[in-house]
Amino acid sequence: MIKRTPLALVIACALLCAGFASAEEGMWMLHQLPALQGKLRTAGLALSPEEIWDFKTNTGLAAAIPSLGGCSASFVSPDGLIVTNHHCAFSAIQMNSTPEHDYITDGFLARTRAEELDTKTTRVSVFKGYEDVTAKVLGQLPASLSAEQRSKAIEKIQKELVAECEKDGLRCRFAEMFGGGSYYLFRSLEIRDVRLVCAPPNGVGNFGGEVDNWMWPRHSGDFSFLRAYVGPDGKPADASPNNVPYRPDRWLKVAADGVKEGDFTMIMGYPAKTYRYKTAAQVANDVEFYYPRRIEILGSLIDILENEGKRGKDIEIRLASWLKGLYNSYKNNQGVLAGLRQVDLAGKKLEEEKRLAAWITADLPHRRTFADVLPGLARLQEEKNASRERDLLLSFLPQDRRPTLLNAATIIERWTFERTKPDAERKLDYQARDESTLRQRLVTIQKSLDAPTEHRVLTYLIGCAAKLPAAQRINAVDQLLGTTGQTGDAAIAAAVDRLLAATKLADQSVRLALFDGDHAAVLSSDDPMLKFAAALRSDVEAKEAAERRWDGESTTLVPRLIEALAAWQGDTRYPDANSTLRFTYATVKGYEPRDGVIYKPFTTVRGVMEKNTGVEPFDAPKRLLEAAAAGADARWRDPRLGDVPACFLSTNDITGGNSGSPVMNAHGELVGLAFDGNWESMTSDYQFSSELSRTINVDIRYVLWFLETVDGADELLREMAIPSERR
Amino acid sequence: MIKRTPLALVIACALLCAGFASAEEGMWMLHQLPALQGKLRTAGLALSPEEIWDFKTNTGLAAAIPSLGGCSASFVSPDGLIVTNHHCAFSAIQMNSTPEHDYITDGFLARTRAEELDTKTTRVSVFKGYEDVTAKVLGQLPASLSAEQRSKAIEKIQKELVAECEKDGLRCRFAEMFGGGSYYLFRSLEIRDVRLVCAPPNGVGNFGGEVDNWMWPRHSGDFSFLRAYVGPDGKPADASPNNVPYRPDRWLKVAADGVKEGDFTMIMGYPAKTYRYKTAAQVANDVEFYYPRRIEILGSLIDILENEGKRGKDIEIRLASWLKGLYNSYKNNQGVLAGLRQVDLAGKKLEEEKRLAAWITADLPHRRTFADVLPGLARLQEEKNASRERDLLLSFLPQDRRPTLLNAATIIERWTFERTKPDAERKLDYQARDESTLRQRLVTIQKSLDAPTEHRVLTYLIGCAAKLPAAQRINAVDQLLGTTGQTGDAAIAAAVDRLLAATKLADQSVRLALFDGDHAAVLSSDDPMLKFAAALRSDVEAKEAAERRWDGESTTLVPRLIEALAAWQGDTRYPDANSTLRFTYATVKGYEPRDGVIYKPFTTVRGVMEKNTGVEPFDAPKRLLEAAAAGADARWRDPRLGDVPACFLSTNDITGGNSGSPVMNAHGELVGLAFDGNWESMTSDYQFSSELSRTINVDIRYVLWFLETVDGADELLREMAIPSERR
Repeated sequence: MIKRTPLALVIACALLCAGFASAEEGMWMLHQLPALQGKLRTAGLALSPEEIWDFKTNTGLAAAIPSLGGCSASFVSPDGLIVTNHHCAFSAIQMNSTPEHDYITDGFLARTRAEELDTKTTRVSVFKGYEDVTAKVLGQLPASLSAEQRSKAIEKIQKELVAECEKDGLRCRFAEMFGGGSYYLFRSLEIRDVRLVCAPPNGVGNFGGEVDNWMWPRHSGDFSFLRAYVGPDGKPADASPNNVPYRPDRWLKVAADGVKEGDFTMIMGYPAKTYRYKTAAQVANDVEFYYPRRIEILGSLIDILENEGKRGKDIEIRLASWLKGLYNSYKNNQGVLAGLRQVDLAGKKLEEEKRLAAWITADLPHRRTFADVLPGLARLQEEKNASRERDLLLSFLPQDRRPTLLNAATIIERWTFERTKPDAERKLDYQARDESTLRQRLVTIQKSLDAPTEHRVLTYLIGCAAKLPAAQRINAVDQLLGTTGQTGDAAIAAAVDRLLAATKLADQSVRLALFDGDHAAVLSSDDPMLKFAAALRSDVEAKEAAERRWDGESTTLVPRLIEALAAWQGDTRYPDANSTLRFTYATVKGYEPRDGVIYKPFTTVRGVMEKNTGVEPFDAPKRLLEAAAAGADARWRDPRLGDVPACFLSTNDITGGNSGSPVMNAHGELVGLAFDGNWESMTSDYQFSSELSRTINVDIRYVLWFLETVDGADELLREMAIPSERR
Repeated sequence: MIKRTPLALVIACALLCAGFASAEEGMWMLHQLPALQGKLRTAGLALSPEEIWDFKTNTGLAAAIPSLGGCSASFVSPDGLIVTNHHCAFSAIQMNSTPEHDYITDGFLARTRAEELDTKTTRVSVFKGYEDVTAKVLGQLPASLSAEQRSKAIEKIQKELVAECEKDGLRCRFAEMFGGGSYYLFRSLEIRDVRLVCAPPNGVGNFGGEVDNWMWPRHSGDFSFLRAYVGPDGKPADASPNNVPYRPDRWLKVAADGVKEGDFTMIMGYPAKTYRYKTAAQVANDVEFYYPRRIEILGSLIDILENEGKRGKDIEIRLASWLKGLYNSYKNNQGVLAGLRQVDLAGKKLEEEKRLAAWITADLPHRRTFADVLPGLARLQEEKNASRERDLLLSFLPQDRRPTLLNAATIIERWTFERTKPDAERKLDYQARDESTLRQRLVTIQKSLDAPTEHRVLTYLIGCAAKLPAAQRINAVDQLLGTTGQTGDAAIAAAVDRLLAATKLADQSVRLALFDGDHAAVLSSDDPMLKFAAALRSDVEAKEAAERRWDGESTTLVPRLIEALAAWQGDTRYPDANSTLRFTYATVKGYEPRDGVIYKPFTTVRGVMEKNTGVEPFDAPKRLLEAAAAGADARWRDPRLGDVPACFLSTNDITGGNSGSPVMNAHGELVGLAFDGNWESMTSDYQFSSELSRTINVDIRYVLWFLETVDGADELLREMAIPSERR
């Protein structure tokens, strides 16, 4: 059977949605809200911008919405109770799971605070406000700087500003907006004792699994509860039994009545990355090279991990979190690529750039200000394309954030190397402020290490590197293989054998001793994995230098591109997502994915029963099915749906990183948790569509129904102050 | 990826739809309409039952609705113009196609009557009324007859009644209703000069192909036009240039305004077969054996034909019609099986039968009348199950209606054999009245014969027969292979080699000479295919005798089962479909296939563009896409949809055989053509569901838009008297 892409209607949208017109579009920064106040009020928001965040007092609703690594979350009780997505808490669940206590399969509920489980790596960053530092950054830059000098100068100012900001236990994050048009310094309180309170079984939290991922109608109960703990002094502290629940400034009230179709919804969270200002040439590279090659590599890695997982339940658990991430990227990348092709975004952008160029050319002041922008960006992309095969592989090879010994070696080697420099001159993410994070990673990978899997992964990636063209070799790989030409599979496997057989890094104490030792000790060690990591650093540093040059050039061009676009089209712009706190407002609304089909904005518990086959990923637990079959509990039932709602759609503009974000009603009360985007809008990181872009949310009533009826988590409901007439 | 069955919601229905309650259910006989008159008027019908058919004058709307072999059709002009489905005219299109004139791919339009193409095999049976002959049949049967005697006696009366009826060029069909509770004699005028007038390209008529088959939303322009011709004397005649267009008593006015959601629709046509009165044991046999085994065999035959078709475009065309039929059965059978399993219809019927049995037992008169019915039917099914593997293969082996030499041999051998008996004693379908049909088939298979394909098909089927258990051997196969035990593949292939190498039947003149000769000549021929056919006849006759016995028993049991059900539940019953004219009334209505999804009742031309990939089966012709892109032509545009409609759904109760049926509005005007049922109601032959059973129709406005805008078929539009303000 032909597998049809469901993206067909995007064509229609491509004609309708050009430009920046839709009410729902926009991942706004909080200081932009006063300018939107009229629209917000019309849309239904009952709060003032100051109630969301008051920049004078640094207080407001946003204090209830912390970042959670790559996810978002919200406080829902004065005792530091946090709700986020199941998939955001997944590695914490995995970390605590064993074949005997399989919390992935069975779920987890702490009946008392003493039963809460240490999540080890999870960090909660509580929002504390931000300030505009554009003048501090750009005011200091001489115009005469080369691209690389400019980039280095900005990085230097960044480090100074961050160092100055990080006192009183605050963490600070320097963020570039509009491609370098402005800069902000975000403050947060980083809490590092975070415990698992409640997670549903995988057959609830991940119901539908990869089949339903990115899809609507959806029936996943993608939620989990954590709790933030601090030292007895109220300050962030390492995990300890003496710690006490953190008392957040603000927490969200749970709106147990939920929402209905057409209701106002707003989402705050930490969207990671969008590409709304990419040029035609950048999009063309994504379509022709970047996504196709990534999909190839991700597919191969998935094959490897799936196969290795078959060796046993324990291996499967070890690899579960890594594999989950791969699946997600793989399906996402496929959807984005199909979507970009379908709408021919590169072609459309080219047309738009032609019209923009004509507008620039038609007017002398425009010409003086903008004439070099489009040609400059085109040249820049051409330069990047020359090494793109190698650069992509270099992004995979050190296995960043993957549980492998090569990643451990990379961290140890780079950390000890950077530590030889003054703190301000070190690579970002390798400064003194990052030490505990890096050390922690060397500890937590222990539970996920698997030598046979790493063997196959490295053999595959080094095999890819061995096939690179002559102009794009990775020297570390050539040295490892002892040749600069092509190399056979056997030679590669043998080289990987040597790496893994002789390394001592599988021993956690060895890793930590090396990490705490000095770089000379690392260099003089005869551990082949460390040697390979050191060699790889030279390749990575060369790439970093090139990137610094490109970034320096980019920061002089992109802000002017956006300025030109805004002047040309006469509108207000929001910056691309960059993992800083953003605000999006919209409504609860279904959509028409294709001719003849309407997707309703709500799914229900009845739909869980419909989809359930008893076979993963459609394997809801028996107790849920029984509760559902016993009749929808009237307390969580939506009378309009005649059932307990499961998930709902809203037109909010979100992306990865927003996972776990609270969906709030007009009064800022919690009505759901954002956990996915829909398949028809996989290109929304490039272009938002009012007709097709939707956020998929788990309905808070499904969470409450599960907690009460299925899980019997009365204490949690009490803590969230669920109204008594609802209990 | 897990392939989920979309039938999940059927479960919900299984709970809601038990019993016979829905307004839309029912394939009614025309004489039942007066009893329904109140309901019909409430539903919106503007005609009286007598306007549909007046049994006194034998006139009415039904005269416009002929049968077309296994399909239905309607007259749409006073000059015998007929509209039906593209898939119903497909073999006529195939018959006229060559690699040079590929009307399958390119479509066909006769610009003048002289250009109309002889369809050779197509026959049009014009409805002329029917009468109840129950008394004539049952009144003559002594109570003392054995089952086989009873069956033979009924067959004898049937032949007498048919012979008596068939004068003045009429064809008569004897039909059993309610499993033998009543009998009817249907009269028709059979026209055998039928020409192809207009067929869209396959990329329109079969747009979506097997992917979309049985599916909604649908975008197939499944229509074609034929014309009926008769001799200059107005009587049916063999094809001849001297023939003149048939002038039907009635033809349908085309309602160029179409229908909208909620409108009344009625369909008349010739539904082939339903199983609404099957018992639990019968359904269990279907689920456990019949469908699984059929799916296996059909799948293997599809593989064979697909592979052989790769040998060349000409072979592909030769096999196209056969393959299309296989695809359709295959997907249908899979859907039915999945649906029967999903709703556990056998289990539900068992429950129902238990309750019925209790009702029967609870009352002495009920006990006296019905006590033996359920046990009798159970015993009967058990008896049938004992030879079901052999019987199923015997239904495939003679290749009934398939273009093979074995089928030709079967026809020749059986025809000449039956002709040795008096006409009234011959096998049904092999009487003098059937001679021209049978002879025609020996001619028309010529264009579809392909020896390598037949070799592989016979090798496969004989291979299946060779594996039958000892108690169920097919003697003809054992003789052919010269053994009664298991036989290797090589021996089977060699036997088939011998059959095909030595037979002379590939020569049409040989076939016809043998057909017209006597049985002795056939028997004494040394043609191995004829010898195999003769041997196979003994096996088939044994099966026929058993079936006659079973049928005899069944006709004493099933009518009383239905009587008991009607008495128990107190309702009116319609008989199972049996290819006789039926009436169903309903409304235009979408449905909810699963939680969160609504299927709208209309699709549009925009949807054709969305689905189009340029690759079969989503390969709409360029001129259609251009016409669509040029903007929906306002004349055929539905203002509510903002586009030209393509297909629509109605709640009519139809099944196979209804293909090509006119969908009519409240005034009996043509608004569409029924061409499919939806996937979610694949079990509707067993059980109708108001929530999920839908008829898929091509909207007449799509037909008109195509004819005018894409095809430029002005003459056809004029002939159908399309209102001038629409043209």
